[in-house]
Amino acid sequence: MALIYLDHLSATPLHPMVKEAMIQNLETVFGNPSSDNQVGQPAAAALEKARGQVAALINAADPKEVVFTSGGTEANNHALKGVAIGLREKGRHLVTSNIEHKSVLNSLRTLRLLDYRVTSLDVDQYGLVDPAAVEKAITPETILISIMLANNEIGTIEPIADIAKIAQKHKIAFHTDAVAATGIIPVDVQKLGVNLLSLAANQFYGPSGVGALYIRKGTPIWPLLDGGLQENKRRAGTENLIGIVGLGAAAELAAQEMPKSLPRIKTLKDRLLQGIVTRIPEVKVNGDPEHCLPHLVSISVTYIEGESLMMLLEDEGIIVNTRSACASGSLRASHVLIGTGLGHALAQGTLVFTLGWDTTEADIDHVLEVMPNIVQTLRDMSPIYKKEHAVG
Amino acid sequence: MALIYLDHLSATPLHPMVKEAMIQNLETVFGNPSSDNQVGQPAAAALEKARGQVAALINAADPKEVVFTSGGTEANNHALKGVAIGLREKGRHLVTSNIEHKSVLNSLRTLRLLDYRVTSLDVDQYGLVDPAAVEKAITPETILISIMLANNEIGTIEPIADIAKIAQKHKIAFHTDAVAATGIIPVDVQKLGVNLLSLAANQFYGPSGVGALYIRKGTPIWPLLDGGLQENKRRAGTENLIGIVGLGAAAELAAQEMPKSLPRIKTLKDRLLQGIVTRIPEVKVNGDPEHCLPHLVSISVTYIEGESLMMLLEDEGIIVNTRSACASGSLRASHVLIGTGLGHALAQGTLVFTLGWDTTEADIDHVLEVMPNIVQTLRDMSPIYKKEHAVG
Repeated sequence: MALIYLDHLSATPLHPMVKEAMIQNLETVFGNPSSDNQVGQPAAAALEKARGQVAALINAADPKEVVFTSGGTEANNHALKGVAIGLREKGRHLVTSNIEHKSVLNSLRTLRLLDYRVTSLDVDQYGLVDPAAVEKAITPETILISIMLANNEIGTIEPIADIAKIAQKHKIAFHTDAVAATGIIPVDVQKLGVNLLSLAANQFYGPSGVGALYIRKGTPIWPLLDGGLQENKRRAGTENLIGIVGLGAAAELAAQEMPKSLPRIKTLKDRLLQGIVTRIPEVKVNGDPEHCLPHLVSISVTYIEGESLMMLLEDEGIIVNTRSACASGSLRASHVLIGTGLGHALAQGTLVFTLGWDTTEADIDHVLEVMPNIVQTLRDMSPIYKKEHAVG
Repeated sequence: MALIYLDHLSATPLHPMVKEAMIQNLETVFGNPSSDNQVGQPAAAALEKARGQVAALINAADPKEVVFTSGGTEANNHALKGVAIGLREKGRHLVTSNIEHKSVLNSLRTLRLLDYRVTSLDVDQYGLVDPAAVEKAITPETILISIMLANNEIGTIEPIADIAKIAQKHKIAFHTDAVAATGIIPVDVQKLGVNLLSLAANQFYGPSGVGALYIRKGTPIWPLLDGGLQENKRRAGTENLIGIVGLGAAAELAAQEMPKSLPRIKTLKDRLLQGIVTRIPEVKVNGDPEHCLPHLVSISVTYIEGESLMMLLEDEGIIVNTRSACASGSLRASHVLIGTGLGHALAQGTLVFTLGWDTTEADIDHVLEVMPNIVQTLRDMSPIYKKEHAVG
C-alpha cells in the first residue's frame, strides 16, 4: 500500500534536488569554512551560496543578515535570549502571544528565571493576535515583541506587518517565528518589517536540524552560541555544512516553485476541507478561515480521540498528525487549541493534515472516502455520542 | 599534486563508512523521530542507534545520558549556561582555565553579564592545569568547574580524573570539553569521573555541525535550547538526523579502530616531531611532552610568521594550520600559546599539524623534505634573523 503522507508539518521528505545537492556536497566537500586554504575554500563557497539562496527567499537586503542555526528552535531561542541579553540594560520586558511555538514560550520561561518579565497575549477564537493588544502591552521596559507569522497547529496567519508598524513606532525590536510559513507562502522581511525572523528547512523539503535566523542590520542581539567568529560573529561553532547546503537548495527551489505550487495546494486543501465538513457531521474547523496556511487543515472531531482517528487512518495508509510533533510525548491538550478557547474534549479530538508538493487529488479523495466510516466507527464506541444521538 | 592533509583539527574528512551511513539514511529516512507513526519510527530508531554508539564510545552508563547537539560549541555552551541557570539559587561562581576553547571562555563572558563570577586559572608552560589550584579556587558559591580534556591547539592532556576527585569531594559539578580528544584517545566518563563531557563528530571522521553533551544522571542542568521534549527533555528542536547518524557511525568506527590506529599515529607523530627538531634549528615544541594528543604537533618557529609558512607549505600541497580554525578571521595571537607564557613573536610563528587515519610515512617524509628549505627561505627574508645570525 502506497503511503499518503499528510504530515508535512512534522517533517517534509527531502526533495530529490535537495537530496542531490546534499549528496554532492557530502561526496566532495569536507573542509572547515573558517580554514583559509584550498580545503576550506570550497566549504566557505558552499556556505555563502546557501546564505544567498536563503536571503533571496526572504528578500533580505544583505545575505550577511542570514545566520544559520540548528533549526527553528535554535533560531527562536537565539532571537529571544539574544535580544534579552543584548538589551538587558535597556529593559527586561517582552511581549508574546499564548499560541506561540514551545521554543518561544519555553525560552521566555527561562528568561523569567533570569528576572525578565513577559506579557503573553490572548488570541481570539481564530487564533488571531490583536495588534491593538500588542500596543497596549508595551511599557517603557519592553525590549522585544515576538509574534509568530503562521501558527503551526491551526495555520492562522497573524497580522505581522501591522504589529511591525507598532513595534517600529515604539522603537522596539520585533521577532516573528516564520517556521511554519517560510517556503510555503511568500515571506518578505521588507514587507513584513520585522527585525528578526526564524525559519527551518524541514518545512520546505530540506533536511531537519537546520534553519536560519534573519537578523536585520542594526538589531541589538547577543549570540546564543558563544565561541568562534563564525556566521559573521553571530553564531559560533563549525557549521553543519551538509545541512546548510540542503537548506539553501530547498530555499531556491521553494522560491522557484511557489507561483505554481501555491494555487495547486490551495485547491487541494479546499477539496479536503469541504469534503470533510460535507461528509462528516459535527466537525469544528480550527484556525482563521481567511488568513491561513494554504497547506494545513486542522479539524476537531466531536466525541472521539484524535489519537484513535490518527491510528485508524494509518491503518489505511494515511499519515496525519494530532498536534505539533514537538509536543509528542506530552499527553496534554494543545496549548494552541486551548488558547483559541476550544474545550479540552474537542482539543483532544483534533487532527492536523498538512499537504505537500506531491499530494494528489486522488490522495485527498482516498482520505474523504475512508475517513467518514472511521469516524463513525469510533463514535459508535463513544458512550457520550450514543447517549446524545439516541433515537427517540 | 595529491594533497597532504595535516589539518584534521579543523575538520576531518568523512570516513567512507560514515559517508555511506549518512547517504543511506538520507535516501531512506525522513520522518520526525517524535512522530509516533511508521514514518517517524525509523527516524526514532536511527536516532537511538546513534545514541547507543556514542554512549559506547565514552562508556556512558545509559544512552539517555547522551544529548545530541549541533557540535562541540553548543555542547560547551549548554554545559556552562545550563548548569549556571540550573544552580543559580545555589551560587554564581564558576572555575575554568585560561586555555579553554573560545566556546567555553566566551560562554563564561556572557555569564559574567548575567552576574555570574568566574575564576580562570593560569596554566604552566606545558599548558597543564594544577589540580591544587582548582581546589584553591573553589568557594561556597562555586557551582561548576570546566577544564578541557585535551587542548585543541597544543595537545596537552589535562589531569581530569584528579580534578574530578576534587570536584566530587566538594560536591561541585565538573564539565570537561573533550572535543579534541574524543575519538582520538580513549575517553571513558567513568574513569574520568566527570558529570558533563562535550564531543564533536568532525574530530573523528564524522560530519561537522554535530556533537553531543554527555550529562551524567542527576546533574542539575537546564536546557540551552528550550522548546519541545526531544532528547529526553534536555535539548529541544527536531534533530539533525543525517548528522547524528554520521556521528554514531563515526563513534562506532573510532572505538573499533583505536587499538590499531593509536600506536600507528603515535609513531608517525614522533617521526614528524623528531624530524622537525632535528632538521630545523631554533624551533620550540609546544604542549606537554608526555601528556599530549597522539596526532597533534604544535611548534613555534622563531623569526617567521606561521601564516607565511602555512602558505608556502600549501604551495607544496601540504595543508597545516597556524591555530584553532575557530579563531580564523582573528589576527590576534592564540590565547592558548600566550597562556603557556609564549611571547607574541613566537606565538605568531606557530604551526599545528594534526595527523589522520590516512596519513602515511611518505606524507611525513615529504613534509620533512620540503619544510627546512621553506623555513630557511622565510628566515632569510627576516631582518631580525639576519641581524642575529650575521657572520662575524
